[in-house]
Amino acid sequence: ELRDVICSLLLPHNQELTGKHIVITAGPTREAIDPVRYLSNHSSGKMGFALAAAAQAMGAQVTLIAGPVNIATPTGVKRIDVVSAEQMHTAAMQAVENADVFIGCAAVADYRPEQVADSKIKKSNDGMQITLVRNPDILADVAALAKAPFTIGFAAETNDVAHYAQDKLARKKLNMIAANDVSDTSIGFNSEDNAMLLFWRDTNNTVQQQALARASKLTIAQQILQQAAKLLSNNQ
Amino acid sequence: ELRDVICSLLLPHNQELTGKHIVITAGPTREAIDPVRYLSNHSSGKMGFALAAAAQAMGAQVTLIAGPVNIATPTGVKRIDVVSAEQMHTAAMQAVENADVFIGCAAVADYRPEQVADSKIKKSNDGMQITLVRNPDILADVAALAKAPFTIGFAAETNDVAHYAQDKLARKKLNMIAANDVSDTSIGFNSEDNAMLLFWRDTNNTVQQQALARASKLTIAQQILQQAAKLLSNNQ
Repeated sequence: ELRDVICSLLLPHNQELTGKHIVITAGPTREAIDPVRYLSNHSSGKMGFALAAAAQAMGAQVTLIAGPVNIATPTGVKRIDVVSAEQMHTAAMQAVENADVFIGCAAVADYRPEQVADSKIKKSNDGMQITLVRNPDILADVAALAKAPFTIGFAAETNDVAHYAQDKLARKKLNMIAANDVSDTSIGFNSEDNAMLLFWRDTNNTVQQQALARASKLTIAQQILQQAAKLLSNNQ
Repeated sequence: ELRDVICSLLLPHNQELTGKHIVITAGPTREAIDPVRYLSNHSSGKMGFALAAAAQAMGAQVTLIAGPVNIATPTGVKRIDVVSAEQMHTAAMQAVENADVFIGCAAVADYRPEQVADSKIKKSNDGMQITLVRNPDILADVAALAKAPFTIGFAAETNDVAHYAQDKLARKKLNMIAANDVSDTSIGFNSEDNAMLLFWRDTNNTVQQQALARASKLTIAQQILQQAAKLLSNNQ
């Protein structure tokens, strides 16, 4: 999008993240049922790509692990394309080995079909049951590493946004979480704007929060990264 | 795509379909599980949009009923956007009331979740079962109308292509069916090219066939429509 290119050029290149390697996941994943059908979700990848562009402008070395989306790779960003949650998990665990920050912005499918048929399943007149099994939890697995990077999660909720976000922050041992209400179509999936609630644990392990008012996804990305950069420098 | 625009301008505007109203469905459908998750398939919509452009160039009045795809509407074509199979069924049954030809090119989801959750289903550590029920069969319902238009179906198969296509032609009482092997990625979903097997019933109700060699989807669309125009004029 031209708007994003211009915004990206106008971003303050303040180098707050110089020397940092940031790994970002973006977009949905697709979980195959057979060669034709799949399970997915409405993530457009725009928020994750905005984070990649903003982090690069702030001086970071950025690795972007992207599910199936139709967005151009931000300049200077290393992109790895994946389809399924398992592929994204493998790529992420490998990429974070030398990372300072991990941002799990992808809407990773929580479940995948237990069986993937080799050929197209023929329909019958009856109903059908799909048995789903849990996918690996990329965010929790990264945060649980002995040498875990500073880990930022996202929560896309349709209700009780603040409650679910704080629960996820604690349960997955994240450093920060950015939550939004995707039931509001003006800021949700595939929209250009976003508005978020940011939660993080301060040096006393107390949860702090900041509301990021509706703005372009690139502006929101910048605000998230500025808060992360502040916490990273406090931690050093 | 620039290539398609140029090809479309270069199409022989031979007016073989002047005065005909053609209704075409294109793309996948999405079947909601909850506000975030859905079931879908790999249809890109390119073949259906190529058919719409080619039919318009041959003089037809074209109504294009499109599932969620990212393709520009061909010039002069009336487009109706839908998401689910049920929405596509409603739009198609209404549009074919005055149609001469119906082309069911969409990859309509055969099944939809029995229940659609109002809010995002929270994951648990356990597996999950999704119960699916059959969607209405748009192609069969159109072909079964008392005043059915000339009805063309598509079959995207991964194996036994000719067998399944002829079975579908007979079972759904279609006038013509175009089948392709989507396990071949050079001609399948999201590729620019296609290669098809065309089957139709002649005036003696004998099944005839024609192989359409690999070519751009626009060329294949033109060949399908030329064969249809021939049969339409024989029927009159």
